[in-house]
Amino acid sequence: MTDRDGAAEPAADGVVDLLGLLAYASLVAFFRLADDASLAVSLPDKADLAGMAVTQFGHFQVLSRRIGELGADPQQAMAPFVEAIDAFHARTAPSDWLEGLVKAYVGDGIAADFYRVIAQLLDQPTRDLVLEVLADSGHAEFAIARVREAITADPAVAGRLALWARRLVGEALSQAQRVAADRAPLAGLLAGGSAAQLGEISRMFAALADLHAQRMAALGLAD
Amino acid sequence: MTDRDGAAEPAADGVVDLLGLLAYASLVAFFRLADDASLAVSLPDKADLAGMAVTQFGHFQVLSRRIGELGADPQQAMAPFVEAIDAFHARTAPSDWLEGLVKAYVGDGIAADFYRVIAQLLDQPTRDLVLEVLADSGHAEFAIARVREAITADPAVAGRLALWARRLVGEALSQAQRVAADRAPLAGLLAGGSAAQLGEISRMFAALADLHAQRMAALGLAD
Repeated sequence: MTDRDGAAEPAADGVVDLLGLLAYASLVAFFRLADDASLAVSLPDKADLAGMAVTQFGHFQVLSRRIGELGADPQQAMAPFVEAIDAFHARTAPSDWLEGLVKAYVGDGIAADFYRVIAQLLDQPTRDLVLEVLADSGHAEFAIARVREAITADPAVAGRLALWARRLVGEALSQAQRVAADRAPLAGLLAGGSAAQLGEISRMFAALADLHAQRMAALGLAD
Repeated sequence: MTDRDGAAEPAADGVVDLLGLLAYASLVAFFRLADDASLAVSLPDKADLAGMAVTQFGHFQVLSRRIGELGADPQQAMAPFVEAIDAFHARTAPSDWLEGLVKAYVGDGIAADFYRVIAQLLDQPTRDLVLEVLADSGHAEFAIARVREAITADPAVAGRLALWARRLVGEALSQAQRVAADRAPLAGLLAGGSAAQLGEISRMFAALADLHAQRMAALGLAD
């Protein structure tokens, strides 16, 4: 065992950590979207949202399989993130269908941006897998159309939903900090990148705020 | 339009009716299983039940597609059954994880037996589709194993769950009678079979009770 081999270890754990985080987030997204779908009034909306939930379950399956391929146990890989992700959702339970849509679009958007940044530090097959999973969430057009319709019908809705989106971001950041502080392997994955990678990643994190503002604008909400 | 053509009409509507009933039941089963999965304690149980939910959504998609192929609108085909199916589930919300499992196994078992009987009156492609959908529900082993474990751990559970199963059957029958009374096309499908078919169907309905008793025995419950 050379130092170089030793140094590679935390990065490998970090990969399993990241996949475990993403797998549990997908499983929870499945439950949440299925729940939100039951709030939908029309049958086609219900079916569309249920379809999105099913997509998330597909992600969970793909990610669990990859964790297994890397020689780790999916359940153990997910376990460290259960508390933070459950806490996030418990603190951001939508009180109606529109809040649910905004959460699906804004919340999943931020999460996807974050995972895309981290993916730059992964080995090629794992990175491809993560990017493939992220490309296939398909909430966007549906949520944008429904939220814009609601704002057109009742402009007062916009203020309430903008506040709601701000709360989602705040809660997401506070749980992300908690995870980053608790999970050495994940932090090691980030710290283990080359200087060029880390510079790139800092720039991409800075871009997260812009991407969030773009999503808010797409919904017709002021950030 | 001859009388014979006229007589064929209700049967065709009856097929769409049956597919609409089955499609909405599958969509609701998706939501219900997703809900029940959130009651599961362990992550693997959660994931297994979520997988069953996803299977039900696949059925919903296949059935909706077939309704479209027959020139009908899936939403309209489902609409007449929303009230009865929702009422059944509202009146049989499981109060815990074991009741959810018994409902998934006993409830879906009875429903599947019923659909299998009706399928004998359908045209060949539609019948094949219905039987394929029914073959792929996969609840059985999982539910049987978990319920038996629970009874072994605490034999008093058996009495409570047997009562629960009886209530499920009662509610299912009362909603089925309501649907049969309200839906002329579905009743027409049943009444429109040949004498030989109808004799066969009566025998199969009589067998439903036996199949139910077999399921109760498999769970380790007295009927």
